[in-house]
Amino acid sequence: MFNDDNNNTGPVYLKHRNFAESAYRQQQPQPISAVQFADSAFNSKANKGNNISKLEIQDDLGMPVNYVRIKALEDDIRMNIISDKNSLHRAITPVLILAQMCALLPVQGIRGKNTSYLVFNWYSWPVIYVFIVIAASLLILSFSLIKIYMTGLTYYSTGEIMFFGSSLVIYILFIHLAREWPKVMEKWELMEREMRQFGYPSKTAFKFKILTSIIMVLAIIEHSASVLTGIMKAIPCSTGGLDIFRAYFSMSFRQVFALIDYSLVIAIPLGFLNLMLACAWNYMDLFIIILACALSDKFKQLNQKLASIKGKVLPSTYWRKSRETYNLLASLTQDFDEFLSPVILLSFANNLYFICLQLLNSLKPMHNVWEAIYFVFSFTYLVGRTCAVSLYAASINDQSKKPKAILFSVPTESYGVEVARFLTQVTSDELALTGCNFFSVTRTLMLTVAGTIVTYEIVLIQFNSVNSDGNGQNHTIVYCP
Amino acid sequence: MFNDDNNNTGPVYLKHRNFAESAYRQQQPQPISAVQFADSAFNSKANKGNNISKLEIQDDLGMPVNYVRIKALEDDIRMNIISDKNSLHRAITPVLILAQMCALLPVQGIRGKNTSYLVFNWYSWPVIYVFIVIAASLLILSFSLIKIYMTGLTYYSTGEIMFFGSSLVIYILFIHLAREWPKVMEKWELMEREMRQFGYPSKTAFKFKILTSIIMVLAIIEHSASVLTGIMKAIPCSTGGLDIFRAYFSMSFRQVFALIDYSLVIAIPLGFLNLMLACAWNYMDLFIIILACALSDKFKQLNQKLASIKGKVLPSTYWRKSRETYNLLASLTQDFDEFLSPVILLSFANNLYFICLQLLNSLKPMHNVWEAIYFVFSFTYLVGRTCAVSLYAASINDQSKKPKAILFSVPTESYGVEVARFLTQVTSDELALTGCNFFSVTRTLMLTVAGTIVTYEIVLIQFNSVNSDGNGQNHTIVYCP
Amino acid sequence: MFNDDNNNTGPVYLKHRNFAESAYRQQQPQPISAVQFADSAFNSKANKGNNISKLEIQDDLGMPVNYVRIKALEDDIRMNIISDKNSLHRAITPVLILAQMCALLPVQGIRGKNTSYLVFNWYSWPVIYVFIVIAASLLILSFSLIKIYMTGLTYYSTGEIMFFGSSLVIYILFIHLAREWPKVMEKWELMEREMRQFGYPSKTAFKFKILTSIIMVLAIIEHSASVLTGIMKAIPCSTGGLDIFRAYFSMSFRQVFALIDYSLVIAIPLGFLNLMLACAWNYMDLFIIILACALSDKFKQLNQKLASIKGKVLPSTYWRKSRETYNLLASLTQDFDEFLSPVILLSFANNLYFICLQLLNSLKPMHNVWEAIYFVFSFTYLVGRTCAVSLYAASINDQSKKPKAILFSVPTESYGVEVARFLTQVTSDELALTGCNFFSVTRTLMLTVAGTIVTYEIVLIQFNSVNSDGNGQNHTIVYCP
Amino acid sequence: MFNDDNNNTGPVYLKHRNFAESAYRQQQPQPISAVQFADSAFNSKANKGNNISKLEIQDDLGMPVNYVRIKALEDDIRMNIISDKNSLHRAITPVLILAQMCALLPVQGIRGKNTSYLVFNWYSWPVIYVFIVIAASLLILSFSLIKIYMTGLTYYSTGEIMFFGSSLVIYILFIHLAREWPKVMEKWELMEREMRQFGYPSKTAFKFKILTSIIMVLAIIEHSASVLTGIMKAIPCSTGGLDIFRAYFSMSFRQVFALIDYSLVIAIPLGFLNLMLACAWNYMDLFIIILACALSDKFKQLNQKLASIKGKVLPSTYWRKSRETYNLLASLTQDFDEFLSPVILLSFANNLYFICLQLLNSLKPMHNVWEAIYFVFSFTYLVGRTCAVSLYAASINDQSKKPKAILFSVPTESYGVEVARFLTQVTSDELALTGCNFFSVTRTLMLTVAGTIVTYEIVLIQFNSVNSDGNGQNHTIVYCP
Repeated sequence: MFNDDNNNTGPVYLKHRNFAESAYRQQQPQPISAVQFADSAFNSKANKGNNISKLEIQDDLGMPVNYVRIKALEDDIRMNIISDKNSLHRAITPVLILAQMCALLPVQGIRGKNTSYLVFNWYSWPVIYVFIVIAASLLILSFSLIKIYMTGLTYYSTGEIMFFGSSLVIYILFIHLAREWPKVMEKWELMEREMRQFGYPSKTAFKFKILTSIIMVLAIIEHSASVLTGIMKAIPCSTGGLDIFRAYFSMSFRQVFALIDYSLVIAIPLGFLNLMLACAWNYMDLFIIILACALSDKFKQLNQKLASIKGKVLPSTYWRKSRETYNLLASLTQDFDEFLSPVILLSFANNLYFICLQLLNSLKPMHNVWEAIYFVFSFTYLVGRTCAVSLYAASINDQSKKPKAILFSVPTESYGVEVARFLTQVTSDELALTGCNFFSVTRTLMLTVAGTIVTYEIVLIQFNSVNSDGNGQNHTIVYCP
Repeated sequence: MFNDDNNNTGPVYLKHRNFAESAYRQQQPQPISAVQFADSAFNSKANKGNNISKLEIQDDLGMPVNYVRIKALEDDIRMNIISDKNSLHRAITPVLILAQMCALLPVQGIRGKNTSYLVFNWYSWPVIYVFIVIAASLLILSFSLIKIYMTGLTYYSTGEIMFFGSSLVIYILFIHLAREWPKVMEKWELMEREMRQFGYPSKTAFKFKILTSIIMVLAIIEHSASVLTGIMKAIPCSTGGLDIFRAYFSMSFRQVFALIDYSLVIAIPLGFLNLMLACAWNYMDLFIIILACALSDKFKQLNQKLASIKGKVLPSTYWRKSRETYNLLASLTQDFDEFLSPVILLSFANNLYFICLQLLNSLKPMHNVWEAIYFVFSFTYLVGRTCAVSLYAASINDQSKKPKAILFSVPTESYGVEVARFLTQVTSDELALTGCNFFSVTRTLMLTVAGTIVTYEIVLIQFNSVNSDGNGQNHTIVYCP
Repeated sequence: MFNDDNNNTGPVYLKHRNFAESAYRQQQPQPISAVQFADSAFNSKANKGNNISKLEIQDDLGMPVNYVRIKALEDDIRMNIISDKNSLHRAITPVLILAQMCALLPVQGIRGKNTSYLVFNWYSWPVIYVFIVIAASLLILSFSLIKIYMTGLTYYSTGEIMFFGSSLVIYILFIHLAREWPKVMEKWELMEREMRQFGYPSKTAFKFKILTSIIMVLAIIEHSASVLTGIMKAIPCSTGGLDIFRAYFSMSFRQVFALIDYSLVIAIPLGFLNLMLACAWNYMDLFIIILACALSDKFKQLNQKLASIKGKVLPSTYWRKSRETYNLLASLTQDFDEFLSPVILLSFANNLYFICLQLLNSLKPMHNVWEAIYFVFSFTYLVGRTCAVSLYAASINDQSKKPKAILFSVPTESYGVEVARFLTQVTSDELALTGCNFFSVTRTLMLTVAGTIVTYEIVLIQFNSVNSDGNGQNHTIVYCP
Repeated sequence: MFNDDNNNTGPVYLKHRNFAESAYRQQQPQPISAVQFADSAFNSKANKGNNISKLEIQDDLGMPVNYVRIKALEDDIRMNIISDKNSLHRAITPVLILAQMCALLPVQGIRGKNTSYLVFNWYSWPVIYVFIVIAASLLILSFSLIKIYMTGLTYYSTGEIMFFGSSLVIYILFIHLAREWPKVMEKWELMEREMRQFGYPSKTAFKFKILTSIIMVLAIIEHSASVLTGIMKAIPCSTGGLDIFRAYFSMSFRQVFALIDYSLVIAIPLGFLNLMLACAWNYMDLFIIILACALSDKFKQLNQKLASIKGKVLPSTYWRKSRETYNLLASLTQDFDEFLSPVILLSFANNLYFICLQLLNSLKPMHNVWEAIYFVFSFTYLVGRTCAVSLYAASINDQSKKPKAILFSVPTESYGVEVARFLTQVTSDELALTGCNFFSVTRTLMLTVAGTIVTYEIVLIQFNSVNSDGNGQNHTIVYCP
């Protein structure tokens, strides 16, 4: 199948389809008259767009083709393709359904046969759902800000603002992701098609389900434990019986019930919203893990192929194909990075912030054993999740460096321009997910993050002690409202 | 037009003009007899200057040319060229006028038709104006030093010295910049001419105006708020009515009015000077932003051109031209860096210092809401401006790395020495503005700076607490003089 | 001997033996019909394994060979080879015997004539011995955890947990290493065979013995001193005579004898176990030093060969052989790194942790001169051992960079593709042992580690002072149980 | 002259002289029969040394040459060469004379006509002088250690030990440097000879004198001020008149006069020794500056040559010569680094240590204005000297990167293997002085050092405050002995 592309025997509409006006056109280089093009490329500023589209149509076979009919045929064919069970589009479907339950990634068509059914629509139910949740978060956030204004700012009280503030940012970010999702998936599908001789990594769908279950179950346990701790703290303030819920809600959502009277009608949606926000937080990390895992699996496939031919004499065409596949993945990594990097920045910032906050909390005396156990579990989960995100994201970088050893071992007989170019790309192209280009997620990052946490912790302890000298530390003690 | 350079049909005086004895001569390589040159290059130390200039004249067409006449023609032509509205020279004019109002960059001819009218003259009005301002700053600085000598040094009191001291350094630096400005602009204009087929980035002039307005308006708001805060602090010390100004000036310029009696004749110019210095501070950052923006726009133009031909088969001449354009920009980046790096070092040092000082101030109790709001606004503006400077300066580095992906995607058919050289330059030439080579301004720098601020903050808190044990912290409390 | 490999005159069963299905096959590239292979490599996913093994047999001489008989001959020959006295396998034997005395690396056949006798067997005496020690450590660890649960956690009490916990991890890790050992040694032996014209580094066996003696003697002195200090501390609590041992054991193993009554039958094995764990700790570092030393010696041999031909004109075949040797060592470094990196991570983490703990201990007042001397000796030994591990491990990286200078000095006459590839590999392949890829062990790492220790120390002091405010520091004072 | 080397017309004994068995032989590549050499290089381990020396003699002209006679002629010629006034050997002579006055670098023949007169002799007067000074330092050091043992260790008291301990290390290091000096200078002279067409940098001798004067005069001022401060502190303890000297010596050399009675016979040599050690400290930094300056000047010469031909079309022979010159300098940089790196490590460690100590001292209250002025001057000088050492040492790295821009601008017509190799070397060979390879001295190092000082300062303040809680800080108060 792969070799067919060079034999020029396949039907035109299959060979030159260009689903997404994507940038992966280097597979079919179009020879153009050198002088003619140099002229057009440099002189024609005014008629550029026009000129180039004309070139594209004419250059394929040297004569104009019935572009409209081919396009229609292509679209028709494309709509009927059924993606493989282990293709990313179908493997990720359950994960996306979960997202939509948490009011994240409001894109339509996630259960479609292939990626061409994906579409983002501002006037769809998922989007409306998201906006309701955003409005609710905004409301609680303003309650919190009012409370801060009235009681003053401490590092402990910033935790609340960070939680609701970041939730808002998460929701807004995921709307943006939803708009980009169809395009990103189309590029991915194109890549999967180019790499079809490598097959689909088996058990992708299963692996995604396992990962999702682990993270989400732990997240819900953590949230339940947090609620239980809250209820236990509320016992001394309650009059017994169901009043305990009133006491719990009054304490946990003090910012709300300090301004308005307690009522079950408000409390229950509030508790539900709280759960949803907690899920959204965990989902953000899960999303990074799933996508990083999918991408690094593709690199792994290429590496396995290359490892199997280590030290063998192979023709340059083989190396060319390998290099082009690698370049395709490199290009996709950059697209993914552009797509995911705000999420990664937010996720790292949040995790770092909450690890520091928890470390600071660890200095406060615990009131009972249950609280200690909850703290240890919660902190361990937080650190573990952060490590998981880092390691999965870093695995892309790890895998992208693997071909180096094989390329150094290419025997002289088969060494040529293609191998040299491949090697140059592997050694000089730093492929990794980044946090908006401020940092690359590699394995060495983890030690840096650990160091940063330590440094920030020093400052927090010092600020805290300086602050507490003046204000007294009694606002951290729990009072019944 | 671009291709003409190779056809050798253009008139001599246009093709080989060399406006600024600039180093961008690689566009017209001059083949020399190899043996002959090697001899002359290695043996002739004594007659080197003479020999080389002779070679330059003779080698072009193999016969001596009437250099003097050509030079005269060239100069004549050059004086009459009218720069494009979006060329840097004309787009930056309003920014430079603003600079001269703040007594910065005292260069003449900024409203000229093109860069050949730019000239620096020690005996011009702008320079004299600058020296008056420098003298005034020097006076205030000495008053401050006398005050420090009398009252002792604390971290808070260093702020004042830093402000006036740095202002002095800024003024002196900008005189140096003014002297270099004509040369730098000539190189820039030469580059614009070489890249004329790319056109001028539209809306450059508009963008510069917007950037200038935003920064300068915020700077003036910040300064006014600072004056207002000062006046509000002065109210308790005043006897009411216009006496409030006396109280304000006595408190804000304590170093002056502790030594000489208060008088409106001194106070008003003092207030005006203070405003000007504040503007100079902000202008320094603005200047970096504007120039970095202009340079990165040029890289963007090249990148857009390259992106449009991703994966296409192109002749090596095309790649040669692209590489030479990139090299031209790389060369200009180095010139810019040499020109700007002291300003960048000063700007980063100042911003870092004042962020630390403000963070330390945040530990002091605020006296009222207005003070708190002023503090939050002032600190946000400071951090925002620092980020803006960093991000704009880092965008040059970002843009300079962009061609990499396109070069990796060049199809094998069109890959050759030129592409390889281009790739080598992109991957191994670290193009970025630097702070006197002590640090490169890239996106990763921002996290490092954040880390540094945190570390320095720890030291400041500790030093402060150690110092205050001995001295008592009461010199930070505001007394009526 | 080396050249014979190219003359094709050696007997078949010697030339193409493939002892360990190792990956070092690039020495004998197998030319395959390009088209045929490209087909098979890309299309045949199902029958891949089958196809490739067939290719291997057929392609060597173009006709099927009697693989089974050759294999038998090979194995026979291999069993009878006697490794050189200075080969790693034989030089390291005493070190491994020591390991097995400490219940580490339970592999069989370490005294064998060559590496083919090495085998790991779950049902062997050494493995059973290891599991007994693990069970004992587990028991003490649980006693410690119970004690912590009862008395609360301080930084000082974590030392005990770290000691027993890490010991457990060490034992489990070394079981893993024992399973990998035969494979790693086979690869090493293959490399030694390929590099036989370089000879074996003289005095390797002697050097290993010296290194082992120094570290182990110091470790035992340190442990004895620690026991002596414990006994001296126990004197005030004892009733004199042999009761001092009771007092010592009760104090040193407080976690055990707080729960069960003191008895010599328990105390003596406990003391013995304690000694063994201390040895295991030191052995871990020793093991890294020995292996790093062996590998860097091999690089040194290659470098000496290269240094002797600096600036000489040599044929490309020479450079090809040198490059392939270097690549072989590079490949082995990666295998070694994969094998050793968990040990390195553990070793660095442990050493860093205990240096911090000791630094924190240094702030406590010493009770007498003997304690001070013991502290200084113990701390010096700890720091010295850490430095030794770092420097020996970093020497691999140092040596791997050495060929660079020689390659830059290759005269133009002999410069070609082989030299260029060699240079690319030396400059772009970062060869070093790593701590699970989180950090590379290079010389610059040492300063980073020093900086990290300082930073962590700050946190520890702060945490400690914050904790001691609440709890009182009296749990660090020694009480008689 | 340079070209002659290729014409083969020069006399044999001039062309192939090999003064120092140095490694710079790549200038005259010796073509050898490829097969023959490959054989000899790989098979002949036993007779290697013999074989290679035979090859060297035979290969030059293909027949045996009368090596002994040529050697004698060469030596004769060499002894009579008079080095240029600006050659390193003659320019550095005054600096070395100063060194010998401080009992440093006890090498003989520093006033010789050329480097062949340099020789190190264990039984020479300079060496004996050095050993006397070492013995004296050792004596004082032991007095200090006895004092520490009696009064306990504080951070302040470590200063004394560091001063005398480091002095000892300096003297021992410089004996080692003296032994290496003749070899290093021979290599340098060889390089100067190869680069003779570049000429000697004018004013080198003058520049060295200026640098030496500035540093040494400041050092002596600083030492005198320190003595004066000591005398002023001693006034309250003295009975007036000349007794003030007794008081001063008793206080400043408390470690000595606490054990033995005061006597002028001991005090005066002690004062003199103290001065000498202070000079040795400053000389260490001066030595680094002078050598770094000499080396970076050579790079500058090459860069100026290259800058003058930027963009010109030149034959590959020209680029080959330039590359070989660069490689020669690169090779020399590595030799210099090996020679100097222990000194650099010691210098940086010392300067860092004393900056931290001084910063910590700055927290103590000053007793009078004179003390404050002395402190500011001393601290400024210390920081200034550290910066000077860093910047001069970093200039080698700066200069070694300069050819990059010129190589990127080489026109396509003249681009070839030589330019590519040159570029590879410039971009991938990190040339810099290092501190025993633990760190490279580049401009970015300075910020790292600044950061390190800040971090260590935090620890020192904390340790100090923790210590002073227990011990009381009164041992830092000055008592009359």
